[in-house]
Parts: sequence; C-alpha cells; structure tokens
Amino acid sequence: MGDKPVKIGLLGLGTVGGGVARLLMEKRRQLSAYLGVELELARAVDLEPSRAEELGLESGVFSGDAWQVIEDRDIDIVVETVGGLEPARAMVLAAINQGKGVVTANKALLASHGLEIFQAARQKKVGVAFEASVGGGIPLVRSLRDSLAANRITSCLGILNGTCNFILSRMTAQGEPFAQVLAEAQAKGYAEADPSFDVEGTDTAHKLAIITSLITGAQPRLADIPTEGITKITPMDINFAGEFGFKIKLLAVLNNQGDKVEVRVHPALVPHDHLLASVEGPFNALHVNGDWVGQVLLYGQGAGRRPTASAVVGDILELARDLAAGVPGRVPPLGTQANGGRLQELAPLDNAVCQYYCRFAALDQPGVLAAVARELGAFGISIEKVTQKGRQEAGPVPIVMLTHEAREADMRRALRQIDALPEIVEPTVVIRMA
Amino acid sequence: MGDKPVKIGLLGLGTVGGGVARLLMEKRRQLSAYLGVELELARAVDLEPSRAEELGLESGVFSGDAWQVIEDRDIDIVVETVGGLEPARAMVLAAINQGKGVVTANKALLASHGLEIFQAARQKKVGVAFEASVGGGIPLVRSLRDSLAANRITSCLGILNGTCNFILSRMTAQGEPFAQVLAEAQAKGYAEADPSFDVEGTDTAHKLAIITSLITGAQPRLADIPTEGITKITPMDINFAGEFGFKIKLLAVLNNQGDKVEVRVHPALVPHDHLLASVEGPFNALHVNGDWVGQVLLYGQGAGRRPTASAVVGDILELARDLAAGVPGRVPPLGTQANGGRLQELAPLDNAVCQYYCRFAALDQPGVLAAVARELGAFGISIEKVTQKGRQEAGPVPIVMLTHEAREADMRRALRQIDALPEIVEPTVVIRMA
Repeated sequence: MGDKPVKIGLLGLGTVGGGVARLLMEKRRQLSAYLGVELELARAVDLEPSRAEELGLESGVFSGDAWQVIEDRDIDIVVETVGGLEPARAMVLAAINQGKGVVTANKALLASHGLEIFQAARQKKVGVAFEASVGGGIPLVRSLRDSLAANRITSCLGILNGTCNFILSRMTAQGEPFAQVLAEAQAKGYAEADPSFDVEGTDTAHKLAIITSLITGAQPRLADIPTEGITKITPMDINFAGEFGFKIKLLAVLNNQGDKVEVRVHPALVPHDHLLASVEGPFNALHVNGDWVGQVLLYGQGAGRRPTASAVVGDILELARDLAAGVPGRVPPLGTQANGGRLQELAPLDNAVCQYYCRFAALDQPGVLAAVARELGAFGISIEKVTQKGRQEAGPVPIVMLTHEAREADMRRALRQIDALPEIVEPTVVIRMA
Repeated sequence: MGDKPVKIGLLGLGTVGGGVARLLMEKRRQLSAYLGVELELARAVDLEPSRAEELGLESGVFSGDAWQVIEDRDIDIVVETVGGLEPARAMVLAAINQGKGVVTANKALLASHGLEIFQAARQKKVGVAFEASVGGGIPLVRSLRDSLAANRITSCLGILNGTCNFILSRMTAQGEPFAQVLAEAQAKGYAEADPSFDVEGTDTAHKLAIITSLITGAQPRLADIPTEGITKITPMDINFAGEFGFKIKLLAVLNNQGDKVEVRVHPALVPHDHLLASVEGPFNALHVNGDWVGQVLLYGQGAGRRPTASAVVGDILELARDLAAGVPGRVPPLGTQANGGRLQELAPLDNAVCQYYCRFAALDQPGVLAAVARELGAFGISIEKVTQKGRQEAGPVPIVMLTHEAREADMRRALRQIDALPEIVEPTVVIRMA
C-alpha cells in the first residue's frame, strides 16, 4: 500500500454524483486494495446538504462550496458531475489549472468545449477522463482511445440515447404513437419533463461529437453535426419498415473519409439481422468498423446511477493509478499525442450517400407510381422495393418505397419535385437507411 | 517526439506474428505519432527465413535465433506469438527476467502458467499484456482489467471459440450433422486438421481460465474446469431446441460466488432473444454482469490475422506508453495490486444449478412419460415443458423436456435411474440451459 492516499473531490451529489459517492464509500477497501493506494472520498459538494445526509457522508466531507474544494491543495482528482456548460466549464478548467486530474460525465461540456479542456489538460500534464460521458457504463471511450488504437476506424453506428431507444422500442412493440409513449416514459422517469434534448437528437449529437474526437483526434464543431430527432416517427412507418425487414432506431453515424469525416444523427432503418436491431429499451450500443479489427460491438446500459458511477469510478482508478506512479497526464485525453487542438473538418451532408425509405401519400389514381419513379429517375435514383397499399376508406393511399443508394442532395431535389406533383397530397416521409 | 525509440522484438512470423509485423510496418508513422515516441519493429524471429522475405522485413531485422533477441539489450518489448507451452514459457520468463515488457496472444500458456508468469512480471516490475489471448480483437481483457474494475463481476457467459460457433451456426442453418460440417470447416481452413482442441472445448476452457483470473485476480487450475465439447450435438437436438425458442451454443460460464467461483464449459441452450443467440459464425462475444454496471456485451472477431494483430499492437502501444513515461509495469498483469499469486478456488460442478434440456429415447408405449417424471420428481426435479413426438416408422420415440432448475448432482442421479428403465432404450441426451 502506497503511503499517500489519493483524495477525491466530488462536485455534485445528484443522480450520477450520488452514485459515485455511494460506490466510493461502499467499496473503499476493495478499490484501495486494487490500486495498492488508499482511495478516499475527501470532499463532496452540493447545494443541498440533505443529499449529503441521505448518503451518510462522514463528517467534514460535505461542502457547499465547489471552489473551495477545487482550490484545496489536498485534493488530487476532481470529479465533475454538475452537468451543463457553466459553471461546469469554469470548474473543470480551474481544477486542471490547479494541476488536478479531472473525471467528468458531462457530454454537453465536452462536445462544446472539449478542444479548450483537452488543450489545457495537455499543457498542465494532467489526466482528463470521460468514460461516463458516452454510453454510460459501456467501456467505449477507453476501447476507442487505447485498445483499438492500432486501427483506423472506418465507420461506426451508435444507439446512444436510452430515452429515444426506449420510446422507439415501445412504439414498435405496441403500435402506439410517439406522443403517447413519450408521456408514459415521462411518467416512469425514463424521459425528462422537457424531453427535447433527448428526442430532438441533441444528446446523441453531443455523444457523436465525443466519439468523433476519439476516432480522429480532432474536435468537430457541434453545430455542424446534422441532427434529426424521432418526433416525426409514426407507428405507420415503423410498421412498413417492419414489413420490409427493418427496425427504426435513432442512430449516430460516422463515416471516416480520411481528411473529412461524415457525421450525422437521425432515425434510420436497421435490418433485423443487424446486431443493433436487437438493442432494445434503455440499452445503448456502439458498432465500430476498424481497418484491422473488423467489426466490434460494445453494448450496455447507457445511463442510470449505477452504470454511470461504474464508469466514473473506473476513470478515477485510472487517474489514481497514474498519480500513484508519479505520471499524471500519462495519456492525453484523446489518447493520441498528435493533432493537439485541431478542429475536425466535416463532410457536407449533401454528399452523404445512403438508401432511403420513402412514404408517399398519393391520390388513388393510375400512373402515380410512374410519375414518382420518373422524378426519382431524373436524379439518378432507382427503386429497390415498392409496395402500394390498397384503397383507404377515404383519403390518400400510401406508396412505400426503398431506394437504392442515392446522394442526399439528389434525394432532396427529387422530393421537392415529387411533393409538387398534383397527385401527391401530403409531404413525403423520408427516413434514411443504415 | 521522445528521443529514444521503443524497440520491438517479435517472436514468430506465423498467422498472428506475420500480421503484427505487417501492421507495425504499415503504420509505423501513425503509431509513432500516436505515441509521441518512435515505435520500431527492431527484430523478428522465425525458423522460416522465407516468411521474413514474404513480409518484406528490412535487412537486419530478421533473426533465426529467438534467444539472441530476448537477450538483446536494445529490445524493450518482446512479443511472443510462438504458441504452445514450451519453449514459449521459457522465452516469456526469460524476457521478463531481462526486464522487458511482454505481449502475448498465447492462451494455452497463460491458462497453464499464468500464475508463474504474472508473479515474475510483478517481481521484475514489467508489463505483461495479453488482450489477444481471449476474443481476438475484442477489447475484453482491458475492459475487465481497467474500465469495469469498480465492479464485482457476478457472472459472465462467453462464446469464445470461433470454430465451434461456426460449426453450430452452420448445423443450425443447414440441418447437417456435426461430422459433415466439421469436414467443410476443415476444407475452408476454419478448423484445424486435428480439431479436438477446439471442438472438445479445451480452447474455450483456456480462455475461461484467463477471464476468471481477470475477474477474481486469482488463477484457477485449468484441469479443474469442467469441460464438454460439441461433438455430441445433433441436428435433431438443435431442431428441438429451436422449437422451444433456443439456439445451442458452446458457452464459457462463470458464476462468482465470492470465495468460490463456478466455471464450466459446455454446449447450452440460449434463448433466441438473448444477445448471445445472435452471435453467429466465427464471431465471439462475452456477456458480463457487474454489480454496478449491469449487463455489458463485448462482441467481435475472435480470431484471424488482422483482428488478433489489432489486439497485440494495442497492447504494444500500452506497454510502449508506459516505457516512454518511465513507468514499466505500471499496471499489474491482472490489474489488481491485491491477490498476488493466489490460486482461485472453484465451486464443485455437483452444486451447479441450472435448467436442463433432456431428450429421452423411449419405447412407444403408455406410461413412459409418467415413469420418467416420477424418477425426476424423486430428486426434486420438476418439468417446465415437454413434447412427446409422434410414432416413428420403427424404433424409439423422442420425449423432449425442459426441466426447472435442478442441482447437477441430482440431475445425474435421476438420469442414472431413468436410463436403467426398461422403456428407455438409448442413453438420454442432456444439454444444460444458459
């Protein structure tokens, strides 16, 4: 056992922070034995003293003042579970500037200010670890950063938001509309009162930004990631997709083109026999293709107190090990010593190529399919499969189609033409295919 | 970029070693930039000089003498891809005693001599890394050792042998018998000329021994792991299992009981909706349950030149990073600083509890099912489901049954009684359920 304990200062005792405190207290003996160094939850900060009481923190551990803990010379590692951009950003930067290691689960912070934080960490030679920021307890950040580092990751697909996946799984299983399932999810605590951050894809885009930086060593600009949520997905489209052999999932997509990287977040049709189609409910998964390793899938619980605390404490153990060995900042935040502080160039969405699912709402009259096919053909888009459903009681009939691969820009132009046809009576529904 | 390059001495230029050489040469520039230190394939050893020529090794790199490379003071990391127990064991121990880091993909070696090798590494404070020894390119060893270290792993299930999984997938898809599919697999190079190491479960037991040591920090005795292969699996049982909603897979099973660990290797029925049921062909996966993280699945290619080289070079990068930071042996081989050199006690198979699939070959006469049920009941074993198939042209009729949970010892005793019944005309087929 080393002489000097490693002292943790924990900022925030909410869902994640409370879990971290509990884990550190419950397993102090085992974790210290694992490390060969005493690991101590020295300070814990929250605005609510009642949380400290509920957790049963030892006296002297609780503080109401984060800055006092950040500036405390005895604290070796600051764990930020405050969330949000400010004051989390200022706190993390201050901790780094004090020469402390930082563990954070804050994906919004890293997606927005990763460049600044990672540069500061490299300058001060301290460790910054963030396994819990993507995929909860799934060992995903460390796998990309270290274990798979010999690879050029050529592409990846991720299901990274448990709320969206829960809603889509439920809509698929029960045929219920989005709004109804969302309300159920809110009632059960699976979705926030203001769900837009999850269901509009923003949370997934944050995580994709972090994954992109791990894969390329450079940071994408968050605002430049094309992002679509799941609010427009209907049971009807889930059904038609099922008939064609697909599930609809909200995906984070990355295609590595070398200099440029194509990234996007949107709902997509995933074939039933793809492993990601089996990822149901609140689970998350990342499917990676590497030039040497081939396909890898990493799967687990993407959120929740206990899985997230598992990841945070895994990070604490790594930083504590480096501190005990006298090599803080041994690993740069993104693994690589190259590319320090570079901005990642993104490929324009217009050039993205994929297959599309389209549902046209057409008047029930001869020649409509021919007209649609003609417009698609004019932009070089060909049809793989089509079903034209029987006459409805009243109103338009759905024509459902899977296209062959097409450029995004061509698809959009073709759709503008198609939606202007007199026989097409509602805006066409388009969902990309994985 | 650091001043002093990290020099690799590679032992063996076969499937794995040749892949490692190629990857190190192809990506020397990128890997060195990633590390911030020049990474150099300095020496490579094989008995066949022609392999060095095929790979296009630079002059001066090839050597026919492993011992010369192991004793070369310039070599920092020895990569052992020789395979087998001796001389691999002697070479690895000699490299450690020379103060060199060691990377090995040799599961047989670690399963048999891990205790000795890991103790030597800790004494000499050098790193020993072995990601490629289990699950090929899947980041599995590092995840268990580091990322999930805050957890008590309560159980895990693994599909860890690509040959067996390929054979079972094929038998399931095509209804062909074991011997025929094995012959096909041999013709395609998916199975060895002598396949017993794979199909008898030995290779899976080696990998389970390594996983056990990562989970508990202590080494199980390889000979004490109950091991059954897939040679007795028939298309008939695959079919019946399918009717009940299961696939048959060769599983590595671990149940962590605290002081003792229950480990076993055998074919098992896996429910269709379990993720492991979707692991087909040559793919491998490990499904882990942790007390904080919950379920995690790690999936990828379990063998092959390129995935295995990806894992080996990932390990090289880790050891090289520690060398460059001046902290060789920063991480003990099993992660934990505790339990150094302890032997892991195993729970006796007799006490294992699971559900069973049984196929009885019975004379087609009334009262047989009642007799079988009575014998099971005498040992406290109850029946969950049963199907009695119609009369065969001639010969016995199959009675197929899933039991509720039962102790292994009770099940065996009941079967001895049942197989002695005059109405039961062939030894009963029993397969455990996952």
